[in-house]
Amino acid sequence: MSQQLTVYVAKSSPFSHRVAIALEMAKAPHTRHEIDLKNKPEWFTSKVNPTGQCPALTYGGPVVPADQPSPESVKLRESLVLVEFIADLYPAAGILPADPVLRAKARLFIDAITQTFSGASHAAIRALMHAGGDPEPLLAALERLQALLPPTGFAIGEFSAADIAIAPQIIRSELSFEHNLIGPSGSQDGQRILALMREPRLARWAEYRKAIQAHPAVRSTFDEEYVLESLKARAVAMRAQGSA
Amino acid sequence: MSQQLTVYVAKSSPFSHRVAIALEMAKAPHTRHEIDLKNKPEWFTSKVNPTGQCPALTYGGPVVPADQPSPESVKLRESLVLVEFIADLYPAAGILPADPVLRAKARLFIDAITQTFSGASHAAIRALMHAGGDPEPLLAALERLQALLPPTGFAIGEFSAADIAIAPQIIRSELSFEHNLIGPSGSQDGQRILALMREPRLARWAEYRKAIQAHPAVRSTFDEEYVLESLKARAVAMRAQGSA
Repeated sequence: MSQQLTVYVAKSSPFSHRVAIALEMAKAPHTRHEIDLKNKPEWFTSKVNPTGQCPALTYGGPVVPADQPSPESVKLRESLVLVEFIADLYPAAGILPADPVLRAKARLFIDAITQTFSGASHAAIRALMHAGGDPEPLLAALERLQALLPPTGFAIGEFSAADIAIAPQIIRSELSFEHNLIGPSGSQDGQRILALMREPRLARWAEYRKAIQAHPAVRSTFDEEYVLESLKARAVAMRAQGSA
Repeated sequence: MSQQLTVYVAKSSPFSHRVAIALEMAKAPHTRHEIDLKNKPEWFTSKVNPTGQCPALTYGGPVVPADQPSPESVKLRESLVLVEFIADLYPAAGILPADPVLRAKARLFIDAITQTFSGASHAAIRALMHAGGDPEPLLAALERLQALLPPTGFAIGEFSAADIAIAPQIIRSELSFEHNLIGPSGSQDGQRILALMREPRLARWAEYRKAIQAHPAVRSTFDEEYVLESLKARAVAMRAQGSA
């Protein structure tokens, strides 16, 4: 029998979405508890994750209500660690293949994603998402990721942890662009970037984006209406700040 | 029969040292090729690792001289990806245990190390190593890592990938401190930091450092004389720059 598994997630968070996709691929029996990031319950930080971040999970120990975590369960956190954990619990789910070379290739792709969305490259992309402006740093970063893709299929062929690492960002940024939720109020930067992302320079990436968005495990774990509302609310707050 | 495995490392590099420790634990048959980081051969970047960084490896394909890599072998890079790769190739080596919970705990510790040595925390530590000065950011970072250690033993009990991730840094910084190779010329900052690291605040970390330095796989893969010379040369260059 499988052990107690409770995951703490926030629907709007791309990091939580990674874990939701892995759980869906594994068809892992679990309890899902939504955390309100703007109003985190005290017990979450004191009893589940001292950093207060989602996603986190408890594993093993007695079956208890999600908001009364047992001291006897193991507490784990960090989305990429959790995806590997679920892959280890359910090796047949294909989250990571058995072949050491393919596993290493998946981890190299994940490493490239992490590097893209941290440091100087991330600062430039973040500035673009907030204030609009020069899309070149984003396009260049996507071109570097594109170069790691095989000619067809997902990052290592079959859909895997490598794609899980980027899928939540892809599906969210697509919505942001489509609804012009980046840059100052009234900006058409989103649609403008989407058009640039359809140019031949990013042809393979465009194909990849489409495949990611169509993947059943990505779609079925994504509440588009809810996330769109939260992206819109964020854009309103950001724009109010920008014009203050 | 095991496949062709050639690793490209630089003895002075802590990242290369990670891979050397994993290979030693696995007793993995391999060809070791030293790369001169100051004078990298052209074939290394064009045929093994486009980023030009060590460590890197080739796996599979025909047996060829290390400086004539075959296009038929798989090329892999990034020290932590390579450690997981060796763990996957040699599951019995104990680099990562079989238990998913322990594997997740090892990865959480590695994640904490990576976060400590990147971003703002790393910038402060780096400034300390170069220019000397306030050791508090380093001590605070070590205290945070110390908090993740169990009461005794290594990061997850038995020596594992978690310890491999930090051991090369520990053994090198120990040498730097002992020989006062940080801060301006004539500085006693190194010995001063070592004294601070022996205070009760870091008692568990001190015990851990000692265990790491005494571990056979760490020791046998460390050329202390060579690394000390390269640390001394770096200090001389750094100090010349600082006084220019």
